[in-house]
Amino acid sequence: MDAAKSAILIELAGPDAFAFRRMDAALFADRPHFRTEADGTYAGNRADLASVRYLLAWAPPPEIFAKLPALEVIFSLGAGVDHLLGAKNLPDLPIVRFVDPDLSARMREYVVWQVLHHHRQGVHYRRNQDANIWTDRFQPAARDVTVGVLGAGVLGLTAAAALVQLGFDVRVWSTSAKTINKVRSFAGREALPEFLAGTDIAVSLLPLTDDTTGLLDTHFIGQMRPDGPLGGPVLINAGRGGSQNEADIAAALRDGRLMGASLDVFQTEPLPADSPLWDCPNLVITPHAASVSDPRALVAGMLEQIAAYERGEPLPNLVDRRRGY
Amino acid sequence: MDAAKSAILIELAGPDAFAFRRMDAALFADRPHFRTEADGTYAGNRADLASVRYLLAWAPPPEIFAKLPALEVIFSLGAGVDHLLGAKNLPDLPIVRFVDPDLSARMREYVVWQVLHHHRQGVHYRRNQDANIWTDRFQPAARDVTVGVLGAGVLGLTAAAALVQLGFDVRVWSTSAKTINKVRSFAGREALPEFLAGTDIAVSLLPLTDDTTGLLDTHFIGQMRPDGPLGGPVLINAGRGGSQNEADIAAALRDGRLMGASLDVFQTEPLPADSPLWDCPNLVITPHAASVSDPRALVAGMLEQIAAYERGEPLPNLVDRRRGY
Repeated sequence: MDAAKSAILIELAGPDAFAFRRMDAALFADRPHFRTEADGTYAGNRADLASVRYLLAWAPPPEIFAKLPALEVIFSLGAGVDHLLGAKNLPDLPIVRFVDPDLSARMREYVVWQVLHHHRQGVHYRRNQDANIWTDRFQPAARDVTVGVLGAGVLGLTAAAALVQLGFDVRVWSTSAKTINKVRSFAGREALPEFLAGTDIAVSLLPLTDDTTGLLDTHFIGQMRPDGPLGGPVLINAGRGGSQNEADIAAALRDGRLMGASLDVFQTEPLPADSPLWDCPNLVITPHAASVSDPRALVAGMLEQIAAYERGEPLPNLVDRRRGY
Repeated sequence: MDAAKSAILIELAGPDAFAFRRMDAALFADRPHFRTEADGTYAGNRADLASVRYLLAWAPPPEIFAKLPALEVIFSLGAGVDHLLGAKNLPDLPIVRFVDPDLSARMREYVVWQVLHHHRQGVHYRRNQDANIWTDRFQPAARDVTVGVLGAGVLGLTAAAALVQLGFDVRVWSTSAKTINKVRSFAGREALPEFLAGTDIAVSLLPLTDDTTGLLDTHFIGQMRPDGPLGGPVLINAGRGGSQNEADIAAALRDGRLMGASLDVFQTEPLPADSPLWDCPNLVITPHAASVSDPRALVAGMLEQIAAYERGEPLPNLVDRRRGY
């Protein structure tokens, strides 16, 4: 069986649909076996769902599965799979997480960018610029600032390595201990207080699970190092909005318990226009854009995995449904 | 002669005085041979200038040199020496440029921060946040964006290497050709058009010389790649304000020939409160803070060099006055 000819359904309702829309023509040209299920703006072919063996999806609509009797494997449109696992009527089929150097590189860019933005006083200089004020601020060296990365999968470790190269003191926290050059590893819930007590900038790349839901709250912030060289703790979340308590974060920014924050993900996305977060002080908001999968990389990776699967090889990056990622 | 006991004058009127003020107590404690010449807020000893053999300075006042008959070596307070070379009554003595890993690391941070800020659509997301708007923008991969670093001394090459590690396509331009892994080198004025024609983000770390004065102008901007993946050229200047034509840069930002810019240095510093630059669109202003010398590193490096000099070893990083850096 030629993998390139197996029917593949691409579901385009998620946040990555934006990137796919731009790539539309290039992706679907000469690929009549690619099907799309979306809002009618795509060039894909809509018929013949019954022959679809592979689904590439973010948060598939519950009615889709009844139309896909031949479905064998589900590929996630992103590194996170909580949207997929929450889908109604989800059949008991293998789910493959999207793991790709392009995705890791984009997340690394976002983490380095936002860590430097707070480290280098970006929010203060922006405010000064708005008021035509020229005043420099004390600038600690990177070696005196500890960045704590929560979540030490491929994305977390790639970001941690880049921060080490820039001279930061870096630590990671995850469910199991890691061995990484120049990075201190903390494992398990019981190690979280010690991890946070030495952390100046916390970066969450955590998946959304029962354990991480609402984790980034007043209690979490209160455990971070209060008197570091930046004058107080900074929180960056590029994992999942469900991990954060937005009212707690906003309150901590307003009363100074948090020196700054960057949020790329939110409890409700898009963030409602009347959210009080929009004009929260010292907060940087990006629209779930930290690491948007490159459709070219994503489709190429999926086609490679399908080819290997059809040669009888095991599927890589399988999701453990019990663990949740 | 014990180097640590040689009289040293530290002149504190320059932009780095801020950092020194914070370090004041630690720097001058137990060092009675350190003298300062400033506005009266320092702890240094003011007498006995006649025995001063070494001067650490940014832009010394012209009357100082007549008071320093024993002066042997002048150390620059920063990597740039144009302020020193422009000092009136400057005696014909060796001038040592400040070259230090801490300074290079701080400049690397600034360059990576600002390149990522434009690459990752920071100015657009900030504007959207101000208007409570959630809209993502097309995000090119780093490999599709070419960063051109002007000036390939220690600072430029350190920044270029960090940009390579983040996946950018990197090129450098300088007076002489360089050989650096994964970086394309362009040398000399005649190579500037070809260098700029492929550059999406230009980063100037150039020293101020006759050749670089006013270089960053309408003509320069017009030579940059107009149709790159960011939608147009971006200019970052962390070298010297004298290299830029501010009216030209403001006009190009306002009419869209420049997609964005970051300026850390200005023709007049501090930037006057009534400068039209403050509210120029898509411009990031920082107050000559890209790489402020760490007083600890600076003083430690100077003391090492003095010790070596007094042992009869040659002075490192000597300034070539004819070349201007």
